[in-house]
Amino acid sequence: MKDTATLLITCPDRKGLVARVSGLLYIHGANITHADQHQDREAGLFFMRVEWALGEANGAAFDVAAFRSAFEPVAAELRMAWRLELSSPVRRVAIFVSRQLHCLADLLHRHQAGELRCAIPLIIGNHAEAGALAGFYGIPFHCIEAGPGGKISAEGRQLELLEREQIDLVVLARYMQILSADFVARHPNRIINVHHSFLPAFVGARPYHQAFRRGVKLIGSTSHYVTEVLDDGPIIEQDVTRISHRDELEDLIEKGRDLERVVLSRAVKWHLEHRILHYGSKTVVFA
Amino acid sequence: MKDTATLLITCPDRKGLVARVSGLLYIHGANITHADQHQDREAGLFFMRVEWALGEANGAAFDVAAFRSAFEPVAAELRMAWRLELSSPVRRVAIFVSRQLHCLADLLHRHQAGELRCAIPLIIGNHAEAGALAGFYGIPFHCIEAGPGGKISAEGRQLELLEREQIDLVVLARYMQILSADFVARHPNRIINVHHSFLPAFVGARPYHQAFRRGVKLIGSTSHYVTEVLDDGPIIEQDVTRISHRDELEDLIEKGRDLERVVLSRAVKWHLEHRILHYGSKTVVFA
Amino acid sequence: MKDTATLLITCPDRKGLVARVSGLLYIHGANITHADQHQDREAGLFFMRVEWALGEANGAAFDVAAFRSAFEPVAAELRMAWRLELSSPVRRVAIFVSRQLHCLADLLHRHQAGELRCAIPLIIGNHAEAGALAGFYGIPFHCIEAGPGGKISAEGRQLELLEREQIDLVVLARYMQILSADFVARHPNRIINVHHSFLPAFVGARPYHQAFRRGVKLIGSTSHYVTEVLDDGPIIEQDVTRISHRDELEDLIEKGRDLERVVLSRAVKWHLEHRILHYGSKTVVFA
Amino acid sequence: MKDTATLLITCPDRKGLVARVSGLLYIHGANITHADQHQDREAGLFFMRVEWALGEANGAAFDVAAFRSAFEPVAAELRMAWRLELSSPVRRVAIFVSRQLHCLADLLHRHQAGELRCAIPLIIGNHAEAGALAGFYGIPFHCIEAGPGGKISAEGRQLELLEREQIDLVVLARYMQILSADFVARHPNRIINVHHSFLPAFVGARPYHQAFRRGVKLIGSTSHYVTEVLDDGPIIEQDVTRISHRDELEDLIEKGRDLERVVLSRAVKWHLEHRILHYGSKTVVFA
Repeated sequence: MKDTATLLITCPDRKGLVARVSGLLYIHGANITHADQHQDREAGLFFMRVEWALGEANGAAFDVAAFRSAFEPVAAELRMAWRLELSSPVRRVAIFVSRQLHCLADLLHRHQAGELRCAIPLIIGNHAEAGALAGFYGIPFHCIEAGPGGKISAEGRQLELLEREQIDLVVLARYMQILSADFVARHPNRIINVHHSFLPAFVGARPYHQAFRRGVKLIGSTSHYVTEVLDDGPIIEQDVTRISHRDELEDLIEKGRDLERVVLSRAVKWHLEHRILHYGSKTVVFA
Repeated sequence: MKDTATLLITCPDRKGLVARVSGLLYIHGANITHADQHQDREAGLFFMRVEWALGEANGAAFDVAAFRSAFEPVAAELRMAWRLELSSPVRRVAIFVSRQLHCLADLLHRHQAGELRCAIPLIIGNHAEAGALAGFYGIPFHCIEAGPGGKISAEGRQLELLEREQIDLVVLARYMQILSADFVARHPNRIINVHHSFLPAFVGARPYHQAFRRGVKLIGSTSHYVTEVLDDGPIIEQDVTRISHRDELEDLIEKGRDLERVVLSRAVKWHLEHRILHYGSKTVVFA
Repeated sequence: MKDTATLLITCPDRKGLVARVSGLLYIHGANITHADQHQDREAGLFFMRVEWALGEANGAAFDVAAFRSAFEPVAAELRMAWRLELSSPVRRVAIFVSRQLHCLADLLHRHQAGELRCAIPLIIGNHAEAGALAGFYGIPFHCIEAGPGGKISAEGRQLELLEREQIDLVVLARYMQILSADFVARHPNRIINVHHSFLPAFVGARPYHQAFRRGVKLIGSTSHYVTEVLDDGPIIEQDVTRISHRDELEDLIEKGRDLERVVLSRAVKWHLEHRILHYGSKTVVFA
Repeated sequence: MKDTATLLITCPDRKGLVARVSGLLYIHGANITHADQHQDREAGLFFMRVEWALGEANGAAFDVAAFRSAFEPVAAELRMAWRLELSSPVRRVAIFVSRQLHCLADLLHRHQAGELRCAIPLIIGNHAEAGALAGFYGIPFHCIEAGPGGKISAEGRQLELLEREQIDLVVLARYMQILSADFVARHPNRIINVHHSFLPAFVGARPYHQAFRRGVKLIGSTSHYVTEVLDDGPIIEQDVTRISHRDELEDLIEKGRDLERVVLSRAVKWHLEHRILHYGSKTVVFA
């Protein structure tokens, strides 16, 4: 994969936004490889994602600093919220896990196969089960149990590790503990969770049990950014699969695992590729 | 389509149930064309559906009365809840509709094409829009408006028509009025509604608006039997379709129509073919 | 729906294309409502679709002629293949049909419901069945039978009608005749067909029979532009549905109808909204 | 998982088959946990699968030998092709793999998580890549390269290993070698392959390349039993996923991996649970 820069913009909609941004990029010699934009007419907002190559394929390398200097006053004038993300150095990801390892195993295999552009320097479990798998992939594993009353100290140790490893993104790969509001507040839009239901149906504990009792004909899975309100953060991806009366609760749980794997890994991939913009409780995914 | 009989059984699970029922049918010469059974281990229940030909293809016609006499004591002994349904005469269906006609048009076309084995002697609307379509298919249409305070008298007229036409099944094809508990109680498991969301998400009014605000990545549709509690009856069928940030509210509504058509027509078809068994708030669909 | 203009571009990829086009549109005061672009890296091609409002919402109306004059030299310089499409006057569509009416009924209902922005001044059948439905929607119907050896004269009459009604798009809504190469050549990329299989599987006659014999677990449907080679034109849309051993051939045919309706109507809608670009045997659909 | 017996029957259809089989099972005290049957009207065939518990939960253990003795004459009289499969001892599975490890990693993780009831005593690769993964799960790995002209000797070594390990099922988990007709003939209906297309579309080499060139809007994957004719064996399971013009060839390959994993693991699971019946080039899957 080549080095690229990605510019992500959210701003009030008005005429000429694409012309201004693409014109500026052209002047600086950007070799655009992907561009997408979106207007939310109701909210009066404009969203844009542009990605361009940083390599020297076409003569000179792209001068990021010069572009940034030129872009800043334009962004201010047009009241843009924006980020300029470079693909290198890669983002650093920590995975949190409990006893069920299917999402972890899936993420680690994808990472090894080159599907996820990131480093994974840290796996944290509140049980010991994930240790062997972490070891096989050569990733340090920390088992931090949080008994009754021990949540604050457990989170303290977790935060310390995240800081020490300079983690950019926390992935909750079926981590069965609720993070405190304080923990969440320190990582805004930087914690991705997978909830094993088609949100907003079946919020909270034991969603497959809830789905089984309600007699739904499809089960689902949802990946989302974590906010202070449980299972309420901006949705990144969802998928469903058909079930029937033949499926017992155990079958729902087993079939659900396939959804969880896919839905979580897509969210992580899109986040790492800077494809996701937030606004309010929603996301724009330029996939 | 040939004449058939269908036996539907729900009873406490025990050994030998299939042997008893299939043995009895064999003795009476039944030419079985479809048989299916299901056990709900958790609830300790057994469900069975058997359909057989009534024609004279193999010599003598099947003697329904004789079979019924022989089956009744067996059913009593095994504490079976059961129904014996004949495909002829066909069931009589009334369709209720408001201003949006896509489900109505779909049901009428399917009926004409032979997909739905029933008679449709009655269409009731709380607006006049459906009149022309009903006329094209030669079905009497009654416009019964229910202004403020007029619900009781409107339902009175509806019930009168249902009785007069000896209606077996009421289909709410995007009928935007809530039926009274009394109306519902008179037609247990004989009113099918389509709700334009993936229940239990987005119960109540304006589900597409709710879905749009929540930022889901899939929208759904649900057909279910109507009970006294709004949008809470046993689910018959559900389906979903993918949306993205590019879809505005109007797109959700338009894409949702395709789901509603399919989900409602499947439920009606399965009901008419006696493929649905209820228990608690769930259904078994022997499709 | 408001009046809009849509510019569709295909050209060799190079730097600055978006900047040039969006800059020119900005200068002319275009109020862009939808923009999308795509690069086929392998083929070295760039594709763009821009749609903007023509109304006077923001002061002066957009001057299409002036923009066209300014754009033409740019397009020539950049070796663009391009079209500038106006939403008004609406396109004129002819529907060809045989005995099966489900796609026709679906298209006519969607048209009436406002989903398809076009006029439908002409329905042609090689059987009489569609006459009543055409009549209900007030559309002239012509039954043109093509007996053995009568194909040339039948197509002659069809072409005459298409010409007289100034038809822009021919939709084959399960029309069970193969059009001659000459007929097709007169309407390049202006005939849309629905084939009842997941192409390129099961080309040719009786695809559901072929699928049933092969024992596939999903059946599909494909809408595509018609070219001289049977079932080989650029694919616009495809969808599938699950089947099982319980489904007999008749069930495949019935379930397939739901696919055909959806797949064909999406293709027609996208064509009418100028969302489709062709290259080689493929399409880019800016949906 | 408890010990069970499963009876699988294929025979000419006639009245009373279910009664005969279920009656015999009842007499022998079978505690049936799953029963399903199917009639292929066109072919005049009847298919049945019955599974029952072998444990002593209800007093005496089920006497398999006695049932077999009693069933054999009935089966002969009714011209049944049948198998009586016991869940214990578990089946022994060998996995063949090449360089791409996603299906292997998936199967091994599912096996460890208890989704697949079998032993996996053997992994064979024609490249060395799979060795580490096999080692992590503690499974002997044999790298057998087949250079030009070395196919016969390579297959000789493979067959020897299969024999020595008493393998019941060979799973080709993206094994990129074509097995000889002789090899296949020795394992009728006991080799499962995953082909990375929606068969019968894109038979043979590089199906994603073929799909990309054709411009399909969905890509698929197919698991099937291997027969002498390439990619032509009875299909067990298929699935598809949506792609768009934005997806380059690499994206097809990456998205396809998710399909391959799911489609192959389902086939292996169903085979191990004795849910699959073959006839002609088709399967009945009692899932």
